[in-house]
Amino acid sequence: MKRRYNVAVVGATGAVGTEMLRVLAERRFPVNRLRVLASARSAGRRVPFNGATHAVEELRGRSFDGIDLALFSAGATRSLEFAPEAVRRGAVVVDNSSAFRMAPNVPLIVPEVNPEALSGHRGLIANPNCSTIIMLVPLAPLHRAAALRRIVVATYQSVSGAGAKAMWQLLNETKKALRHYEARGSGLGAQGKSPKGFSMKQLLARPIAHSPQPRVLPAQIAFNVIPQVDVFLDNRSTREELKMVNETRKILGEPRLPVSATCVRVPVFVSHSEAVWIETERPLSRARAAALLRRAPGVKLIDDPGRGAYPLPIQAAGQDDVLVGRLRRDESVAHGLALWISGDNLRKGAATNAVQIAELLTGIRYRTRFGI
Amino acid sequence: MKRRYNVAVVGATGAVGTEMLRVLAERRFPVNRLRVLASARSAGRRVPFNGATHAVEELRGRSFDGIDLALFSAGATRSLEFAPEAVRRGAVVVDNSSAFRMAPNVPLIVPEVNPEALSGHRGLIANPNCSTIIMLVPLAPLHRAAALRRIVVATYQSVSGAGAKAMWQLLNETKKALRHYEARGSGLGAQGKSPKGFSMKQLLARPIAHSPQPRVLPAQIAFNVIPQVDVFLDNRSTREELKMVNETRKILGEPRLPVSATCVRVPVFVSHSEAVWIETERPLSRARAAALLRRAPGVKLIDDPGRGAYPLPIQAAGQDDVLVGRLRRDESVAHGLALWISGDNLRKGAATNAVQIAELLTGIRYRTRFGI
Repeated sequence: MKRRYNVAVVGATGAVGTEMLRVLAERRFPVNRLRVLASARSAGRRVPFNGATHAVEELRGRSFDGIDLALFSAGATRSLEFAPEAVRRGAVVVDNSSAFRMAPNVPLIVPEVNPEALSGHRGLIANPNCSTIIMLVPLAPLHRAAALRRIVVATYQSVSGAGAKAMWQLLNETKKALRHYEARGSGLGAQGKSPKGFSMKQLLARPIAHSPQPRVLPAQIAFNVIPQVDVFLDNRSTREELKMVNETRKILGEPRLPVSATCVRVPVFVSHSEAVWIETERPLSRARAAALLRRAPGVKLIDDPGRGAYPLPIQAAGQDDVLVGRLRRDESVAHGLALWISGDNLRKGAATNAVQIAELLTGIRYRTRFGI
Repeated sequence: MKRRYNVAVVGATGAVGTEMLRVLAERRFPVNRLRVLASARSAGRRVPFNGATHAVEELRGRSFDGIDLALFSAGATRSLEFAPEAVRRGAVVVDNSSAFRMAPNVPLIVPEVNPEALSGHRGLIANPNCSTIIMLVPLAPLHRAAALRRIVVATYQSVSGAGAKAMWQLLNETKKALRHYEARGSGLGAQGKSPKGFSMKQLLARPIAHSPQPRVLPAQIAFNVIPQVDVFLDNRSTREELKMVNETRKILGEPRLPVSATCVRVPVFVSHSEAVWIETERPLSRARAAALLRRAPGVKLIDDPGRGAYPLPIQAAGQDDVLVGRLRRDESVAHGLALWISGDNLRKGAATNAVQIAELLTGIRYRTRFGI
């Protein structure tokens, strides 16, 4: 009989935790006993898994007794406190927080990219930042073929990357903005026509009144974009931008690879998109890059722009593949390519990647086409 | 007595035309007689100007008899047909379409950047592409100081760049999406909490049903981003991306400057934002770049990110200044800087720039601080 595992999901009521439960079930991970853990505030709620519901228990050290595998997605503070405790009690931890990602003894894994780095783990494996995972799934095969020399990336990140509350912020602000516009532009008029003297522009551009509810994101996100993801550091970059630099270097095993990122939040619920420019050491034609991406594990090349075929975040949402398109020569530099990526930040950017790591750990075959 | 001018605005009912009328009035352009022109469809409508309303007349060749200055914003086809006709009848034309921008004898002007290129014009002056104007207002002083060697830019462009109908598309799709979500998630529940078993994510990520109304933009824009602005060309770039390359080179007088652009539509009503990376020939420290931008005409430096001070499109809307922030060293390359820009695409990106050109032509002093 195949072995089954006692699994704990920490942060089971959050945006990523919810997705972890869904992905474990979808991929038929061999769960023996499931323990769903969260803060005391959520204890007693029931969450669905595989057709049944499970009561959420309060996260404590002893929650991990008898647990084989713990998937953490409850923020860095909780991970710092409880992940080592879980390891001490015999669990293997896959941690989705940033707490341990850059620790030298902690493997930071994207299964399509560096599965070999799992060997010799000490019970704790880190799941990379969502924007980094989504970027590296398609860049890794190009790196193997032609050696990346520099990466420049501008992100278009969905609000779900900041958790379920940020999704509610977008929803509530959008409702409020629409009410506001309609109150002022009473009888907005026939479709496509604004009534005489009515300035749609002035109306719609105006920031909406500040919500009485606390904001999760640092500014209005409805009908706006915010060039800040996570907090600012001394060097005027955000922590998200630093993660994309440092985690990329660690995962690719290229500790000095030049990477520059500008991370921006956009009013999209799910899926991060990225405009990426790469330079390679060796020449890499567009055609060869396309051929590499067409057979790269975890990648779906959607690149017939003249027919409107390019990745969209609403299309990537719910998929495990990272969608890649708009692949073209960057004529502004030697050995340059530009591409456009959309990937589900809750799935491949978080939950799916974590479950894939668990599958690697347990030696389970997956349905994806890893090159290992 | 100061001279006053007979002015025609072509495309007066469109998103940019409406703004042209507003900007002419705001800046007290010395209008003697105003003629507002549009297609036959709009003839007879009345549009506001300076406290009165003016009847829209159908655009014809003879519309330009007696006109001193014609501001065109009715698309390239109309400009190709009527702008030379207007010049023949004695008007000076400032054309906001792409029709003549790259013609060798047509000056392409951003008044803060290359006012000297106006001299020797032959009656037709082109107003550049909105994304290009917004990018070059802050980049020009950096170019003068340290010589640009390469520009990489990812845009976050508002729907108003595609005209008023695209603004209605965003509004209508957003309403429809909200109705859709609420119908399915009946009792979405208390703020910040989703009811048990209700997957906000699956609901919100789903593309909304195709609208029976014709789409202006090539895909759903509500809660989505679209990596296509304008049409695709043979080299897999869009025409918008090509405009940013070619117009930048012409305006800066650097015919071979390496420029790479990825242009993306975002669900914002007004103001384009841009993540920009530059490399310069000569070293340019962040501090010196900030000092240059602080006194650059048409630029407002908003750059105290730790206190949440950075440009936002909702903040740029309605302003003539281009907002610049997130200025920082790009450590991934020699002599690299990264910055973030937001500017009102209907004002500085179109109407204000056109009226500023008219002011240059007529020798009027403006209230902005041009370095000329």
